Amino acid sequence: MPDVIPENSVGLITPKVQHFDTPLTLRSGRVLEQYDLIYETYGELNADRSNAVLICHALSGDHHAAGYHSMDDKKPGWWDTCIGPGKPIDTNKFFVVSLNNLGGCSGSTGPVSINPETGKAYGPDFPIMAVRDWVNSQARLADVLGIDVWAAVVGGSLGGMQVLRWSIQFPERLKHAVVIASAPKLSAQNIAFNEVARQAIAKDPDFHDGWYQEKGTLPKAGLMQARMLGHLTYLSDDAMRQKFGRELREGKLNFSFAPEFQVESYLHYQGEKFSTRFDANTYMLMTKALDYFDPARDHDNDLRKCLSQAKCRFLVVSFTTDWRFAPARSEEIVNALIHADKDVSYACIESDNGHDAFLLPIPRYLDIFHAYMEGVAARSFGGKS
Amino acid sequence: MPDVIPENSVGLITPKVQHFDTPLTLRSGRVLEQYDLIYETYGELNADRSNAVLICHALSGDHHAAGYHSMDDKKPGWWDTCIGPGKPIDTNKFFVVSLNNLGGCSGSTGPVSINPETGKAYGPDFPIMAVRDWVNSQARLADVLGIDVWAAVVGGSLGGMQVLRWSIQFPERLKHAVVIASAPKLSAQNIAFNEVARQAIAKDPDFHDGWYQEKGTLPKAGLMQARMLGHLTYLSDDAMRQKFGRELREGKLNFSFAPEFQVESYLHYQGEKFSTRFDANTYMLMTKALDYFDPARDHDNDLRKCLSQAKCRFLVVSFTTDWRFAPARSEEIVNALIHADKDVSYACIESDNGHDAFLLPIPRYLDIFHAYMEGVAARSFGGKS
Repeated sequence: MPDVIPENSVGLITPKVQHFDTPLTLRSGRVLEQYDLIYETYGELNADRSNAVLICHALSGDHHAAGYHSMDDKKPGWWDTCIGPGKPIDTNKFFVVSLNNLGGCSGSTGPVSINPETGKAYGPDFPIMAVRDWVNSQARLADVLGIDVWAAVVGGSLGGMQVLRWSIQFPERLKHAVVIASAPKLSAQNIAFNEVARQAIAKDPDFHDGWYQEKGTLPKAGLMQARMLGHLTYLSDDAMRQKFGRELREGKLNFSFAPEFQVESYLHYQGEKFSTRFDANTYMLMTKALDYFDPARDHDNDLRKCLSQAKCRFLVVSFTTDWRFAPARSEEIVNALIHADKDVSYACIESDNGHDAFLLPIPRYLDIFHAYMEGVAARSFGGKS
Repeated sequence: MPDVIPENSVGLITPKVQHFDTPLTLRSGRVLEQYDLIYETYGELNADRSNAVLICHALSGDHHAAGYHSMDDKKPGWWDTCIGPGKPIDTNKFFVVSLNNLGGCSGSTGPVSINPETGKAYGPDFPIMAVRDWVNSQARLADVLGIDVWAAVVGGSLGGMQVLRWSIQFPERLKHAVVIASAPKLSAQNIAFNEVARQAIAKDPDFHDGWYQEKGTLPKAGLMQARMLGHLTYLSDDAMRQKFGRELREGKLNFSFAPEFQVESYLHYQGEKFSTRFDANTYMLMTKALDYFDPARDHDNDLRKCLSQAKCRFLVVSFTTDWRFAPARSEEIVNALIHADKDVSYACIESDNGHDAFLLPIPRYLDIFHAYMEGVAARSFGGKS
């Protein structure tokens, strides 16, 4: 499972871990003295190191974006639809780097890692990260890999925020920025959803203010609720109507509080699955990074002024039924880029799938993305790696 | 507080309680052997009993829709903007009846009431109610009050669903139905939000499967989360942007998990306030009644066929930024009514206030509502009570 690795897959992948012992000063003022980043690469770095693409992950993502870790894997990496031979991020052309961000729970240093100062897991003592901290740590990984300039930095949702930050923080170090289903900052409504999710975790008695590892517990119920709510906001009303409608699990009302409608069972299943694989402190951290992101704040709240520092070309993509990061939010970015006289392509993709669309094989999306990346290849290294 | 009762208020009001000892068979098949309904009335019933208006409340509403219970009240009833002398539901003309629904926690029989069979509070043993059960109990209250025919039955949100049910369950007993910010049935997304809220309550360790009264606890955290989520969905993205934007409580990021953004504090405050006044089992019940409501189900899922039973005239009102019960949902009702050859007036009111708009003094809303109710008065009793 897969019985055979599909031809357009990057195949079996082994993650690598890079240790860093140069202290990293964070946006919060705190310092990470040393840390690990886990990452994967797909494709080959060309001789002049001009074909590298960085993938930035979203809230619950990790380094495993494409391919399989073993023949027992039921599913490939989270963005396998877009990364592989012949796919939009074509690994016949590009050398792709995908890492787990600091604060994550998939192998990079985060709350579940041992704090060398105490010999215990960081837990809630792990510093709250800002998007710029991730970008700084990603730049250090680029240094180690010998990548001075990315052909492209690419990400969806929270990943797109990292891309935007790259474009203004290291303008000389990327040629293209691909910002998908993202926003220049969260709205009050977005923040409110995040806070409700955090409260679900924080109020779980098994959370113990984040010290659940020490206590030998897991805030499963809280994490499950947070995910149910998150998942709900990733789907569109239309998608849910098509997928579940008002179908009943047992064909009739039970007049009980157990899940009766299919949509309830589905959310329970999603929440349950997530709560066994994801770390609650990481979830808290990631949502805070989302809330904090607001690069225009340092530029008189003027996004045009902020993005005028960028030197790369941009592709911005949104999806019609994404109400978490609606097309209008992408258009704020596009408008600011045009006002800042930047080269920006924009596609708003028709889709019923809400925010989740950026992970799905929607023909126009894949086509536009593929075509743009061919331009990236042509401009960065003449198209052939 | 108020120092003086405003002139357009119904003034000081004393609720009444009506006991019923005729068993009520519920949609679930269970039977309530006896029960109380608490209600208030505003205005005077005219000689031929033709000027009565029934108010149906929404999820967290109660019988106290207008006026004050004492001079110490900080706020009047929940729909004081719309009920009073000279207001849309003009108490100089109409005799208004407003009750707390069965299963409520404000004085009508519900989970906090004593179950005569056990001598203990019903708690989670209180039967799950359907909208039709409420309508049946409201019809019995009408019988007691000597009201054969309502001039109008009026409600917003879940209240609007009761109005729709009235129109098909007792078509001879109302002349007008006013359905505000409502829907013919919940969408999968609506159900999903309700389920996340219920889970927040159910997973609170102080909930004890609903037996918290017996255990001497209160599932405050769960109820608070449920309300934070609910409240969030009552507001529009725009309203939250205007009200809070990304304002920080202390003017700067704290890099902590305590509420930092104003919108977080606001939601905490709303959740906290609600969790001290509302009963968790009632909240569970009310959301289930919402989920279950689907009157077309008994009519081949054909809303036109369902509503063709109605004999009254209709006013349907929606609000542009209401995404919980969007205008499109009201328009489903309107379309079905037109297809069923019913007399229906429809207004979609421009407002930034999301679902909450139906409680707010929006000029066009009050004006349309007032004008329609003048027509109700003219048609029902010649306009003068």
